[in-house]
Amino acid sequence: MRDAYHEELEALSDSLVEMTRLVGSAINRASTALQDADLTLAESVIAADDAVDALRDELDRRAFDLLARQQPVATDLRTIVTSLRMSADLERMGDLARHLARIARRRFPDSAIPPELRSTIVEMSQVAERLVAKTGSVIAKKDVVVALELERDDDEMDHLHRELFTQLLDKNSPYGVEQAIDVTQIGRFYERFADHAVSVAHRVVYLVTGQYPEPAATESV
Amino acid sequence: MRDAYHEELEALSDSLVEMTRLVGSAINRASTALQDADLTLAESVIAADDAVDALRDELDRRAFDLLARQQPVATDLRTIVTSLRMSADLERMGDLARHLARIARRRFPDSAIPPELRSTIVEMSQVAERLVAKTGSVIAKKDVVVALELERDDDEMDHLHRELFTQLLDKNSPYGVEQAIDVTQIGRFYERFADHAVSVAHRVVYLVTGQYPEPAATESV
Repeated sequence: MRDAYHEELEALSDSLVEMTRLVGSAINRASTALQDADLTLAESVIAADDAVDALRDELDRRAFDLLARQQPVATDLRTIVTSLRMSADLERMGDLARHLARIARRRFPDSAIPPELRSTIVEMSQVAERLVAKTGSVIAKKDVVVALELERDDDEMDHLHRELFTQLLDKNSPYGVEQAIDVTQIGRFYERFADHAVSVAHRVVYLVTGQYPEPAATESV
Repeated sequence: MRDAYHEELEALSDSLVEMTRLVGSAINRASTALQDADLTLAESVIAADDAVDALRDELDRRAFDLLARQQPVATDLRTIVTSLRMSADLERMGDLARHLARIARRRFPDSAIPPELRSTIVEMSQVAERLVAKTGSVIAKKDVVVALELERDDDEMDHLHRELFTQLLDKNSPYGVEQAIDVTQIGRFYERFADHAVSVAHRVVYLVTGQYPEPAATESV
């Protein structure tokens, strides 16, 4: 039987998984709001981000409290410090989903996505949704194999991000400045979302193996 | 006389100040590289970011080691955990300076800054440089008054960021898609740089007063 202390440690992990669930719902709905120019859905994503922030604050408070009360060492200490880092990444992923929803709101009733770029942006949203689902599973099961899979999903995101710029700069598709701004921001937010998911997965690898994986390919600009 | 433990705690703060110095140098030089289309300077900023990352890694290792060996409580625990958070913000500020330098490199021998937008971007760079200088001083002196001043600098950055989009969208200045992409990214990177500086300052306020200041105005998208 686990003691209260180890139950509290386990509860940190449960809260992180719950954060991935909320962030996963946010990125799904923000993507749909962008793709369908759905204002109500966009507003719901923007409003829901407070719950992610609140969960992060509460998780951080419990982690800090465990550090103070239990004075953990070794693996337990690593688990708690890493939880603080993962909660920061997940909170930021929530912000990025909210940013995407804000772009949908800003352009409503128009769509922020030019028709010719739609399929690339839909693919980016699918990779983002896959990444956050895997992140939840990596945290819950401490699954190092799946954690390393996220690198490949992130490579795919980086590829799609470059592809998006190539399409945007295509001389035969003369986009306006407003479209260029929107698409640059949309691409950036999906790409950063993926980076934070990979960062969380790397931290799980660190927790399990004591070592960070080799750094991923450099973040694209 | 301070014991070895408190000297190690103080050394964490010294390393954070050193990080602000490196990041300040990076943002100054990245801004000049952008403004003067200076490839050599851009390359030097890109190369120098490894030193910021290395300093962060070393600081985090020492912070973790102090947690494990000293099992600190109360203020000392708060100082160490907050150091871990501040080092993450400062490392990210270094990344953002490097991103700006990469844009200068990408457009060389052209300038990434359209002449009509130059003065706004120069003002953004000046605010960024002021913010990072103040951040160093806030960490070194635990100066809550200056920490709260950073909010006003950040408001100025947000104002300049909005102004930049207004100018970019001006119907009488028809920018191309490539220019719109560059300017959107430049604006974003300066604005995020400022956000991270404010975040560091808030953490110092938290360390000194035990409370975070009211959240700043919502990050603009």
